[in-house]
Amino acid sequence: MSTTTLNERIWPAAEIVEDLSELRKKAPLTHVITNIVVTNWTANVLLAAGASPAMVIAEEEVAEFATIAAGVLINVGTVTNTDARAMRVAAAAAHKAGTPWVIDPVAAGALRFRTEIVMELLSQKPTAIRGNASEILALAGAVGGGKGVDSTARSLDALPLAKELAERTGAIVAVSGEIDYITNGKETIAVSGGHPIMTKVTGVGCSLGALIASFLGVQKDPLRATVSASAVFAIAGSKAAAESKGTGSFAVAFLDQLSNLSA
Amino acid sequence: MSTTTLNERIWPAAEIVEDLSELRKKAPLTHVITNIVVTNWTANVLLAAGASPAMVIAEEEVAEFATIAAGVLINVGTVTNTDARAMRVAAAAAHKAGTPWVIDPVAAGALRFRTEIVMELLSQKPTAIRGNASEILALAGAVGGGKGVDSTARSLDALPLAKELAERTGAIVAVSGEIDYITNGKETIAVSGGHPIMTKVTGVGCSLGALIASFLGVQKDPLRATVSASAVFAIAGSKAAAESKGTGSFAVAFLDQLSNLSA
Amino acid sequence: MSTTTLNERIWPAAEIVEDLSELRKKAPLTHVITNIVVTNWTANVLLAAGASPAMVIAEEEVAEFATIAAGVLINVGTVTNTDARAMRVAAAAAHKAGTPWVIDPVAAGALRFRTEIVMELLSQKPTAIRGNASEILALAGAVGGGKGVDSTARSLDALPLAKELAERTGAIVAVSGEIDYITNGKETIAVSGGHPIMTKVTGVGCSLGALIASFLGVQKDPLRATVSASAVFAIAGSKAAAESKGTGSFAVAFLDQLSNLSA
Repeated sequence: MSTTTLNERIWPAAEIVEDLSELRKKAPLTHVITNIVVTNWTANVLLAAGASPAMVIAEEEVAEFATIAAGVLINVGTVTNTDARAMRVAAAAAHKAGTPWVIDPVAAGALRFRTEIVMELLSQKPTAIRGNASEILALAGAVGGGKGVDSTARSLDALPLAKELAERTGAIVAVSGEIDYITNGKETIAVSGGHPIMTKVTGVGCSLGALIASFLGVQKDPLRATVSASAVFAIAGSKAAAESKGTGSFAVAFLDQLSNLSA
Repeated sequence: MSTTTLNERIWPAAEIVEDLSELRKKAPLTHVITNIVVTNWTANVLLAAGASPAMVIAEEEVAEFATIAAGVLINVGTVTNTDARAMRVAAAAAHKAGTPWVIDPVAAGALRFRTEIVMELLSQKPTAIRGNASEILALAGAVGGGKGVDSTARSLDALPLAKELAERTGAIVAVSGEIDYITNGKETIAVSGGHPIMTKVTGVGCSLGALIASFLGVQKDPLRATVSASAVFAIAGSKAAAESKGTGSFAVAFLDQLSNLSA
Repeated sequence: MSTTTLNERIWPAAEIVEDLSELRKKAPLTHVITNIVVTNWTANVLLAAGASPAMVIAEEEVAEFATIAAGVLINVGTVTNTDARAMRVAAAAAHKAGTPWVIDPVAAGALRFRTEIVMELLSQKPTAIRGNASEILALAGAVGGGKGVDSTARSLDALPLAKELAERTGAIVAVSGEIDYITNGKETIAVSGGHPIMTKVTGVGCSLGALIASFLGVQKDPLRATVSASAVFAIAGSKAAAESKGTGSFAVAFLDQLSNLSA
């Protein structure tokens, strides 16, 4: 095992503030192909942060759109055969055009059909892979203990295999959890903050995947972009939790905090 | 007509509190196949209550997932031919595996295509059927006065036919309305509470169907489980209505109340 | 160019108040075929306003439903081939039955596949066309500068071509922007109000298209119906913006204001 470094970065580190400021200036067009549970929420998260989301899902349109977008997210949460065809086209187009793209392998390892789809998509060289510990472990070839879309493993447990996955795929790997670990295999950055209530609102993790795609559209260093997106999420989540009375008001406060975060 | 009993049960009856406590302890994996209008809301409702929702909809995945889930919901609100294929597979797998499952026959009776789909699904022996009075009347073979997904009949009017439907299908039948009636044909339990504003937020009824599936995953008596889910909904709705200023804040307060309900 | 008139109408003009009052009395059944990002939000907007939304999307059901509905919306935001088939059937059925219908040509001009679908749908004589300036310009045959679903042109810039589009199609054309312009080609009515934050919540414009369909179901003059829907949106948006702390609470307050607007 090669020597690796582990650093920490949290809001308001200069890099994060700068990246968020850039995001708001450029409003990167973010092509989102995600699951039907979180489409609305994801669009609102990106708008609150300052990006410009567009959910284009038809097989006939995704290549054209992935080519002009600043970043692409592919999330397999409710993938069907029809969706998978569009995802393959989008991933190939993003790869060919040099558009940075993110894959969120929801419940990979727990269900064979989608695990195969994710494996195929990996051949199109995603810029970043974001998942919980179980999903990252599953992808890395370990035995996944996935229970639906929830993580039963802890993010730190997944770090060694996350690094290997990053080395093998060339992608940034972001393991979400109480502490997020973001690694390129050589260097790992930990992002703490956030709040456990973030796991009680559907799509918080999924929308982080989309926001990573937005940040990749304005920040060329993919490790830094992924860290910035995660850190922005953590601070908005932490602030929102402090002022909310339950899961409903947390979701509302999260969007408010994200839209008001001063860059 | 056989002799039947009619009782009432509302929060905080011991059975309800116990079932909710169990739900929070076990976080039952709930397989939700529902309409595209309410997926996000339904997931947030289940998370707020303490269950573990997963929307798995691909024909290739639903059998595997219905088999491992603690409960399954099938809601035909926006059913297409593709969806219907997956629903048939999921219902058959749930039946075969002994996973309790719920059908929500949205607008059955009002539209022929979905009525036929629902009739087919009934052959897979749902554990519970949840609908408004018009839908239950339609299913019971009476003439449905359905106007879209709204109910134009009252829940009490549907009770006699709901009992017959329960006897004929072996399912618990839950008729939602100002008062919910839940029956196994022999015994009927009325759940009052709630608030009219609950009909002004989309998906409240649909998410109750999903929550019934979650409760069925932790409480083996299906009548009791269905009553507990309904009573939890009624109290959260009633508390939320008291503190909201319109339909938007009601939806937020409903999730807050549900997530804070002390079991 | 023929002589045209330009007037302004804002809440609480008598026509608007009367139309909203009528909407709440009749709760028009509104058939919504829209994109997967905004289904939930759109249903909640229509419910808050007092209409009765129903999302029926199966090719097998849309003709039956468009025939009995009071108004129909077709929005191509995430259109696929399967959706397009259902849209063609629904538009044809609405046209044949005399049900007023609205088309929202999201991102027309920016993507060829959907532009062709929209052009085909136009042959079924929509009662109203609602879009942002870029979309209306694209439809009118001008070069669209569309960037995803956002408008890069201003609504006033699109007005001359919007009038031509209205003349050519016989539809009311509503150009959304800081000021909304609604025209039948001869007469144009400007609706001001609203707030820039309305562009930071996904689906606000899309749900206006749906609300226009609802108003068309209760007000036979289509120019007036479209103006009333737009004016109700503007006042609810303006009031909501005044009491919100960010994009999350704005969305909640918008539904609250809409549900409380006294007609």
